[in-house]
Amino acid sequence: MADAILDFWFDFASTYSYPAALRIRPLAREAGVAVRFRPFLLGPIFKSQGWDTSPFNLYPAKGRHMWRDLERLCADLSLPFRRPEPFPQNSLLAARVALVGLDEPWGEEFCVAVFRAEFADGRRIDDPGTMAEILGGLKVAAAPVLAAAQADESKARLRAQTEEAQRRGLFGAPTFSTADGELFWGNDRLERALLWAKQHARA
Amino acid sequence: MADAILDFWFDFASTYSYPAALRIRPLAREAGVAVRFRPFLLGPIFKSQGWDTSPFNLYPAKGRHMWRDLERLCADLSLPFRRPEPFPQNSLLAARVALVGLDEPWGEEFCVAVFRAEFADGRRIDDPGTMAEILGGLKVAAAPVLAAAQADESKARLRAQTEEAQRRGLFGAPTFSTADGELFWGNDRLERALLWAKQHARA
Repeated sequence: MADAILDFWFDFASTYSYPAALRIRPLAREAGVAVRFRPFLLGPIFKSQGWDTSPFNLYPAKGRHMWRDLERLCADLSLPFRRPEPFPQNSLLAARVALVGLDEPWGEEFCVAVFRAEFADGRRIDDPGTMAEILGGLKVAAAPVLAAAQADESKARLRAQTEEAQRRGLFGAPTFSTADGELFWGNDRLERALLWAKQHARA
Repeated sequence: MADAILDFWFDFASTYSYPAALRIRPLAREAGVAVRFRPFLLGPIFKSQGWDTSPFNLYPAKGRHMWRDLERLCADLSLPFRRPEPFPQNSLLAARVALVGLDEPWGEEFCVAVFRAEFADGRRIDDPGTMAEILGGLKVAAAPVLAAAQADESKARLRAQTEEAQRRGLFGAPTFSTADGELFWGNDRLERALLWAKQHARA
């Protein structure tokens, strides 16, 4: 059971990725599963389905349910919740910074802090000032990180990550993927995905 | 707490309505909530969003995940599962028969039996022979029921039911709605919807 591992694919703009990001680390610890945070961009995947914005904007009844459902869900989890304006936020910068951070000890904390800034505090995550503030809160020097995030290598890594997501069949976020190729889509599949990862770990 | 009540909106063609229909009665009994079975048609609602078939057919990655997810879910619930051919099934006849039955003591059993025929046994639910067999299994004379189901009154009732679903903001199935206007979409929201219905019942 050495490598019970679960990949956590998320887009910082994705609404249900917020509760998933806040829940996954304690639940994974409890389940004895290692988690890899894998930010990607839903935009190019939505575009390939003919959508130029979130399906929650394109289909208003679905959108109205999602906002109310998320509000109820966050209340149940005692998570503060504010609806981001505009929605969806542009998550490009945050995802690039996250990829830099996930090579360092502060990456996961950064991701969680971005979700909190966006969905609890109503901050804009496309603003480098917000990123700098979050990095500062983690005692990380912002300037070199923001420079690295905007370098060609970071851009290429995020593109590759998004292409891998699409190749694996992802169509939404959050999605959890296991080493044996199972996909579990949605915050409400997190517990089941962890159990699968645990039960199907290579010996 | 006299009227803790939950409306269960479903389309017989809807995949996740199958586990919901099989789960809802025991869970509701346990929760002390009365359930009203409300068959409707998703087709007209999908059409008004510009879709001429199930989104699971229109968006192949989403469809692939759904079939695998449903397979895993049914295995977890020890429910037999076969993928209906064709998908989606035409659910018009079954919904009309169900509306006749839901005025009688056999309506809910009929609904559950249709879901089993379709998703466990791979039967076609647009076939009057399948309907007659299910009715026979419930000791109900099929001919007068099938005649009533095809009468103008039944057709009008199903249209009205579908219009009410749309007016309430339904966009998918299963959906659970409460007396105070909450909507919970998806088999995975059933437990939460029952709890809501119970906690917010009028005294």
